[in-house]
Amino acid sequence: MLPRGRPRALGAATLLLLLLLVVGFFLFGRDPECEHWSWAGEVGTQCALCLLMPRVLSDGLRAAATFDGDPYGSRNRSASGLHPPLPPKCELLHVAIVCAGHNSSREVITLVKSVLFYRKNPLHLHLVTDAVARNILETLFRTWMVPALVIRFYDAEELKPLISWIPNTHYSGLYGLMKLVLPSILPLSLARVIVLDTDVTFSSDIAELWALFAHFSDKQVVGLVENQSDWYLGNLWKNHRPWPALGRGFNTGVILLWLDRLRQTGWEQMWTLMAKRELLTLTATSLADQDVFNAVIKEHPELVHPLPCVWNVQLSDHTLAERCYLEAADLKVIHWNSPKKLRVKNKHAEFFRNLHLTFLGYDGKLLRRELFGCPNQLPPGAEQLQQALAQLDEEEPCFEFRQQQLTVHRVHITFLPHQPPPPRPHDVTLVAQLSMDRLQMLEALCRHWSGPMSLALYLTDADAQQFLHFVETSPVLSARKDVAYHIVYRDGPLYPVNQLRNVALAQALTPYVFLSDIDFLPAYSLYDYLRASIEQLELGSRPRKAALVVPAFETLHYRFSFPNSKAELLTLLDAGSLHIFRYHEWPQGHAPTAYAHWREAQAPYQVQWAADYEPYVVVPRDCPRYDPRFVGFGWNKVAHIIELDAQEYELLVLPEAFSIHLPHAPSLDISRFRSSPAYRDCLQALKEEFHQDLSRRYGAAALKYLTALQQSQSRA
Amino acid sequence: MLPRGRPRALGAATLLLLLLLVVGFFLFGRDPECEHWSWAGEVGTQCALCLLMPRVLSDGLRAAATFDGDPYGSRNRSASGLHPPLPPKCELLHVAIVCAGHNSSREVITLVKSVLFYRKNPLHLHLVTDAVARNILETLFRTWMVPALVIRFYDAEELKPLISWIPNTHYSGLYGLMKLVLPSILPLSLARVIVLDTDVTFSSDIAELWALFAHFSDKQVVGLVENQSDWYLGNLWKNHRPWPALGRGFNTGVILLWLDRLRQTGWEQMWTLMAKRELLTLTATSLADQDVFNAVIKEHPELVHPLPCVWNVQLSDHTLAERCYLEAADLKVIHWNSPKKLRVKNKHAEFFRNLHLTFLGYDGKLLRRELFGCPNQLPPGAEQLQQALAQLDEEEPCFEFRQQQLTVHRVHITFLPHQPPPPRPHDVTLVAQLSMDRLQMLEALCRHWSGPMSLALYLTDADAQQFLHFVETSPVLSARKDVAYHIVYRDGPLYPVNQLRNVALAQALTPYVFLSDIDFLPAYSLYDYLRASIEQLELGSRPRKAALVVPAFETLHYRFSFPNSKAELLTLLDAGSLHIFRYHEWPQGHAPTAYAHWREAQAPYQVQWAADYEPYVVVPRDCPRYDPRFVGFGWNKVAHIIELDAQEYELLVLPEAFSIHLPHAPSLDISRFRSSPAYRDCLQALKEEFHQDLSRRYGAAALKYLTALQQSQSRA
Repeated sequence: MLPRGRPRALGAATLLLLLLLVVGFFLFGRDPECEHWSWAGEVGTQCALCLLMPRVLSDGLRAAATFDGDPYGSRNRSASGLHPPLPPKCELLHVAIVCAGHNSSREVITLVKSVLFYRKNPLHLHLVTDAVARNILETLFRTWMVPALVIRFYDAEELKPLISWIPNTHYSGLYGLMKLVLPSILPLSLARVIVLDTDVTFSSDIAELWALFAHFSDKQVVGLVENQSDWYLGNLWKNHRPWPALGRGFNTGVILLWLDRLRQTGWEQMWTLMAKRELLTLTATSLADQDVFNAVIKEHPELVHPLPCVWNVQLSDHTLAERCYLEAADLKVIHWNSPKKLRVKNKHAEFFRNLHLTFLGYDGKLLRRELFGCPNQLPPGAEQLQQALAQLDEEEPCFEFRQQQLTVHRVHITFLPHQPPPPRPHDVTLVAQLSMDRLQMLEALCRHWSGPMSLALYLTDADAQQFLHFVETSPVLSARKDVAYHIVYRDGPLYPVNQLRNVALAQALTPYVFLSDIDFLPAYSLYDYLRASIEQLELGSRPRKAALVVPAFETLHYRFSFPNSKAELLTLLDAGSLHIFRYHEWPQGHAPTAYAHWREAQAPYQVQWAADYEPYVVVPRDCPRYDPRFVGFGWNKVAHIIELDAQEYELLVLPEAFSIHLPHAPSLDISRFRSSPAYRDCLQALKEEFHQDLSRRYGAAALKYLTALQQSQSRA
Repeated sequence: MLPRGRPRALGAATLLLLLLLVVGFFLFGRDPECEHWSWAGEVGTQCALCLLMPRVLSDGLRAAATFDGDPYGSRNRSASGLHPPLPPKCELLHVAIVCAGHNSSREVITLVKSVLFYRKNPLHLHLVTDAVARNILETLFRTWMVPALVIRFYDAEELKPLISWIPNTHYSGLYGLMKLVLPSILPLSLARVIVLDTDVTFSSDIAELWALFAHFSDKQVVGLVENQSDWYLGNLWKNHRPWPALGRGFNTGVILLWLDRLRQTGWEQMWTLMAKRELLTLTATSLADQDVFNAVIKEHPELVHPLPCVWNVQLSDHTLAERCYLEAADLKVIHWNSPKKLRVKNKHAEFFRNLHLTFLGYDGKLLRRELFGCPNQLPPGAEQLQQALAQLDEEEPCFEFRQQQLTVHRVHITFLPHQPPPPRPHDVTLVAQLSMDRLQMLEALCRHWSGPMSLALYLTDADAQQFLHFVETSPVLSARKDVAYHIVYRDGPLYPVNQLRNVALAQALTPYVFLSDIDFLPAYSLYDYLRASIEQLELGSRPRKAALVVPAFETLHYRFSFPNSKAELLTLLDAGSLHIFRYHEWPQGHAPTAYAHWREAQAPYQVQWAADYEPYVVVPRDCPRYDPRFVGFGWNKVAHIIELDAQEYELLVLPEAFSIHLPHAPSLDISRFRSSPAYRDCLQALKEEFHQDLSRRYGAAALKYLTALQQSQSRA
């Protein structure tokens, strides 16, 4: 039946098209905006759209009128039933964002999450970043593995000379101004781009915004939403002298930038001249690029295409945005353009915060969604990973372990502001990993270890926000800029302990690392003592690499006073208040440290590896990584010490070093290990595979580890 | 400029309308569906829609053709740029859902979250529930306080006689069939309703679905998506004999039900007759209501309005849905219509699971969003709450406490399947509260307490899913149906300890409750001993109410063997392995229990209240509630014991009862209390307000508590 209808439909469509052209001429003949529409819309929709979309305003008076004369809301509402046609399925959309520093890097991720949540098209992000943001975001996007998302970085450092001559008092610093030079630095092949501030949140499909390019007239080069405050009217306070603008001016938090037209119109020269001219009488820009954009638009109103207000609902301190959103049926983009950000006072702030919090706490891994029917979406490594996962046998008893080992966790390094330690040849970073239930250890750890730390935290996206709050409200933690926190996002049922250790280890920036665990508090003097020992032992210039052993103790009391010296520690040990770590349950773990010898030792002494030895050690930063196959509980450190021994590290016990384990309720993973024979069987299988790999890599030299394993099994 | 354009636009619109009518006749003159379109669309869109929307099929052959002949996808894609006009802003949309039991109640909440996330209209939910679901959902929606959401319950019990005569083998049981009788039981004033299965997830605004009512012809009464499997073709296996259907038939997971037309057409008689006729040759329905709907449609194809496939993407075991979603630009509703639910095997299952998990873990409180510009949205109590919150002074030092006290937490009672204990006059429920970091206590607690428990868990939505997984994978926990878990959703920075206790207490179903804490393990014999004591002491018939004190001990060792008797306990106490609970830090908390006397006691003995006394007690279920003003750490139990004493409860210590506190790392709230003088000051303020209230309620009798407080302060 259907094929029979088609020629008829085609004929009718042609007729309809002709009729619409006639009607269109009648309707819009003298409206330049509609003449110039160049997009290939669906038959029968152009006219309706032209009736319903906000009228494009071609002079300053009309632009200024949008706010007071005809609240956008009503227009937006009428338009809500009828959207402009979206870009074709699978069309690549381009977005540019300037991002610098630790805090903006966190912000931009929430923005990107909101965009990815609603998007249905492939996206190309053009990120202009400083070194800090690049380091963070490169790692993040590499590990995020979002299909149909391309990332390209541009070095903000190189752009600074282009804009640093403009004095600017805005809190975004130089970086805000960089939006002005995007037409010069983005690839020439790129014709159009959406430019976003890091402090916006999407609540709609970005393709709807992209579709508005189709409404530009020939002359229009930049799409902007009117500024939703009286700032540019210059009446906010006495002697307030803003930059020139058309009426209320425009806000540059969301920009549609028609790049090739900008390049053709000589944009660079245009804005440079304008900025120089204004700076003859004004001392600086107050709102960075936005002041310059507005000055240009004031002079050349024909360049701007006003966008509906819902595409940039501005929650600044003096916002008038209510006029927009109370009327609108649908908000598209929220802009937190107050320095107070989410803490801005506004009677509807709760509403907007909820939209933002949605993405702040959203599990980013859920955005690893393919776009059905679009080709070549997979990010590097994703295909191999998919294949490896597909090869796993769900019925196999250790399936959960295999799956967890293959999981690529999203990693957000240096989640909080961090100052790398100054380069010092004997410096040591404390390396550890934790999850939410150990946060309360951090303050004590900071009191015990005054040196740099690199900590991996295994958290959900929501946990990460709680963690941020925790640090911000702790005077002890917020004072420390030498502690780097790296978030590894939760995924899967087993704790990826060694993957976490490797993340923290890889981010340590000193020549040496102290590989510790979060439940241990080091001796107060340990940081200084370790540096002195490294220097004294000339670790950097010895023929063999060395691992310095820090003897480990434990208290079973959850209230106790920490010993200030080795002498005090020995007293507590003799009194039974302290014990050798896990002396009762797992003596072989630390026996080779030779605690009896340590009591009397005055100098470092060498010890030999033995089965199941798992001391806490100080090693050069380039030490072997932990074996990521060990997930959950058990044997994760043992394997690392074997690796050190196989690579012929000398094990030297330090006579004055110690570290004490505090009690805690058993973790869920340990409870599981204890109660499940299947779990223990899988751990056994992992051990055996580890030894096979060891033999492969170290040959006959690895035989002793296998023998030791077999002996310990026959004992068990 | 705008007004000048209007008359011209109107004239053109009229002309356009005329032209479209001509074209429309030419195009669709002989297509009855287009003749009947009765909605008031925007000018210029009807024709395009008619071109682009799925063709309405008027006979069986054509209905079957939709799937193979013309994949919906291409149609959906073309249509994506052009939606039918949405219902007006603030129009109330109606949704009906049948829901029974604990598991469906969890499911329906995820569905509702997905609907609320995208909705922009007020909603009225009509919930047909059994007693279990009603109990759960009434509490949930009352505490959820979502603006612009009306809930009405209908008793499924009353509907059973209407459909119980139909034999049914589908896993939904009788409840699935209840969709058939909705036209009879929903209010007569209700003309149209969307009917949803509990296992669907929205990924779009439900108003877009509602808008499709506008496409119904005069005769059409039910909108359905074609069934996306070969089930009704009857060739899935040998001797597979499905109910009759048009081609592949239709799926009833998502239904647009035009109620008043159904009533006019005599729906009830129609489906009853049809079902009876088919049951002459078929033994039962396999797919519940869906079989009956299809049988009716087979006979009366003019009644059905086929909906685009994206409105019900079916992930059943034999799904052919790929044909739909690979082509479509935008999926609207996912339907988990396999008994395997999220565990269904499908090469794109990961994609769909991610959509579903989005809402499973979504923080429901973020959906407390008002709809700007719509009147009368606030649920009961919300306005008073808003006012109370608005009156708080953000600068006040205890602002966080005040805010936390006022917070209404969403509460999901009996989150997991639960069998209430049989009524027994001396039965005792253990009442406690916990958060995620104490989950590992649950198994041990179950081993120590064999009676009913009512536990409040303070969790995020995401935690709740982890908790579910934890219970499902624990043989100990999943075997216990007498433990009721009540989720109180996290909101705010302070732990609402007494609100949690009150939730657990309110849900206890036995005449007595043992008010414990999650870190305590009761003596193995305690449950039996308490019941015997209650009986012996004739607690139910004494002139004065009694609180039975269970002496509390603690171990500071996190590995220790639990005493099997009072004698063993006393040995451990003498050996220093056990202590009186908090004997060293807070002796006044338990001193009045008179442990020295207890050692020798053979019979229950009475003790007197003293300042700061906070024993663990067994009391009648109707005991006073905990004072919810105490949030975070400190004094929360002390206030409750004062309340018991003020109400003249006798305090009787049981000679054989005991309970032991296990060590754990300090909670974040305690760390905060210890480190912050501001926190302690606020707690002091709360204490004073509590005493003022006490004086108000108990008059001079409350004087002794105030005196005690002042004395203890002057000592401190």
